[in-house]
Amino acid sequence: MNPVTRQVSRPAPLAVTMGCPAGVGPEIILKAVSEQSNLPPFVVIGDKNILERARDLLGLEKIDFRQWQPGEGLSSGKGASSVPVLSVTSLSAQEAPFGTPSETTGKASFSYLERAIELCLREEFSGIVTAPISKTGLKLAGLKWPGHTEILAEKTGCRDFLMMMSGSKLNVTLVTIHEALGDVPSLLTRQRVLKTIEITVRAMERDFGFSRPRIAVCGLNPHAGEDGMFGREEIEVISPACLAARERGFEVTGPLPPDTVFYQAARGAFDAVVCQYHDQGLIPFKLLHFQDGVNVTLGLPIVRTSVDHGTAYDIAGTGKADCQSLVAAIRLAASISKNRSGASKP
Amino acid sequence: MNPVTRQVSRPAPLAVTMGCPAGVGPEIILKAVSEQSNLPPFVVIGDKNILERARDLLGLEKIDFRQWQPGEGLSSGKGASSVPVLSVTSLSAQEAPFGTPSETTGKASFSYLERAIELCLREEFSGIVTAPISKTGLKLAGLKWPGHTEILAEKTGCRDFLMMMSGSKLNVTLVTIHEALGDVPSLLTRQRVLKTIEITVRAMERDFGFSRPRIAVCGLNPHAGEDGMFGREEIEVISPACLAARERGFEVTGPLPPDTVFYQAARGAFDAVVCQYHDQGLIPFKLLHFQDGVNVTLGLPIVRTSVDHGTAYDIAGTGKADCQSLVAAIRLAASISKNRSGASKP
Repeated sequence: MNPVTRQVSRPAPLAVTMGCPAGVGPEIILKAVSEQSNLPPFVVIGDKNILERARDLLGLEKIDFRQWQPGEGLSSGKGASSVPVLSVTSLSAQEAPFGTPSETTGKASFSYLERAIELCLREEFSGIVTAPISKTGLKLAGLKWPGHTEILAEKTGCRDFLMMMSGSKLNVTLVTIHEALGDVPSLLTRQRVLKTIEITVRAMERDFGFSRPRIAVCGLNPHAGEDGMFGREEIEVISPACLAARERGFEVTGPLPPDTVFYQAARGAFDAVVCQYHDQGLIPFKLLHFQDGVNVTLGLPIVRTSVDHGTAYDIAGTGKADCQSLVAAIRLAASISKNRSGASKP
Repeated sequence: MNPVTRQVSRPAPLAVTMGCPAGVGPEIILKAVSEQSNLPPFVVIGDKNILERARDLLGLEKIDFRQWQPGEGLSSGKGASSVPVLSVTSLSAQEAPFGTPSETTGKASFSYLERAIELCLREEFSGIVTAPISKTGLKLAGLKWPGHTEILAEKTGCRDFLMMMSGSKLNVTLVTIHEALGDVPSLLTRQRVLKTIEITVRAMERDFGFSRPRIAVCGLNPHAGEDGMFGREEIEVISPACLAARERGFEVTGPLPPDTVFYQAARGAFDAVVCQYHDQGLIPFKLLHFQDGVNVTLGLPIVRTSVDHGTAYDIAGTGKADCQSLVAAIRLAASISKNRSGASKP
């Protein structure tokens, strides 16, 4: 197979955004490159200076970078074995000291994602994998979004997006995400719960290849309210949404008591669990998939996965950060991209 | 060793309440007796007819019952190898059909607990282990309490009680228990969080034998509010409570992000985790200890443990219910009772 043929038959590469320059993003990317021999092809969107700092710190002299520009192939020409980088910023080490979010790092983090989205929408990339950014950094940079997901939704003009945490034992989606717990009950509506169920089902079919995914839906309250004794959201909001979902032909069970459903799902009773709020889903998910969990944004026109951890400022620059979640995120993005192209071109 | 000497040197037996006659309580008690050879001594407080029904159903002909009365020893006289029962009700099978809570079963469940508490306060028993009751049954019986714990607290005149779920990997306590999620934020006060921390610390010392327990305290909101971005309860309530607890000399860490603290605790970083609401603690606990978790009520003048599951009406009468949680609850009650008597009589 000659390089030209490979170029044509291959899907576009993935974009891996570097995340906060002061966090662990640069080092986990290089660890993944160093430790994994058969990763799907990707381009790092970030800052070559900062990646070089991480390389030197990790003692990975064998890793080489090359500037990549949109439209370029990945395997053509010289330096095919080096890591392709689209350098959006040129920060000095002093401008991004380890562990300290700032206006500079917030703006930089955002610029990598913005560029990746733009190029993904132009199909230069088959999907985006994001390394962690800091919500504090975004705020210091005067940006209004609390995280990657919301930025992606807005920049792709998508209103019906959804966060899924995906792992080998458990897949969870969230009806509400970055909301104060006290705001959650008033944010739950039949429409919103139903929409979450629907996006979850569709994504399990299109992105994960299930023909008839089995979906569990959590209640909001202890014991799912126990017939209204501890809250009425199950009766008034969640049960009707589950009923409507079943009427659409989806295989939906719920609302179920939140404290037992994850045990059942982890043992194979359900393919995904729809959760009403952030920690309802993330507490069990991180307990089972602390190291290797992947965050997937469902419902977007583009494929997007992410590591399931933060910037880990306390260990940034030490080389201690684990790259398992990033590796899993890169593999899952490639898998979703493949399932989607298979689905659209049968 | 003659029977009289044994009688004097032994602690009082435990009381095991039978729980809802229509639930799995009777059968898990008999399974525990049948499967475990070295359980600490206990008396079943319940209904001999219903226990006989469970025995026949399980095919455990070898199990024999004898009527026990307060003041009697356990190992004296005839029938020492049989199960001692204090029969508080005499229900027929028709009055307690499997799987159906009613006014009758609710009243009966309550009467077993009430009698056990009374006798425990008189030191006829060294502690109480409760099999599951139905909150619906209590309600049908016109009783105001949502569960065992609240009944125990009121009957022992205890205001500063606390539910702990205890297992080999994780111990969790709850600041709020059976409350609608939407009511939780307004129920959290510095005083209440501090009191929960304090009862947890004291119980870990007195009941579990830790000299300096390491306590993690959960935030309420996603990422523990992330500097107030998703809720201010951490800043206004939980952080000040943690600070006050540290000022009292307790080893307290928090408020910590709820979605990672349980992973850390399960790996040994903390001896107990103080949780702000029911599912925050019970979701991770049941994921790790679905079969063998124990519910302990801390802060009571009497020792009380419980199985960590409900009446399981769907399988009541089938013999399928697992007795691991009950066995663990009986053993833990004996251990706490021993630690307490050791602590009070050094």
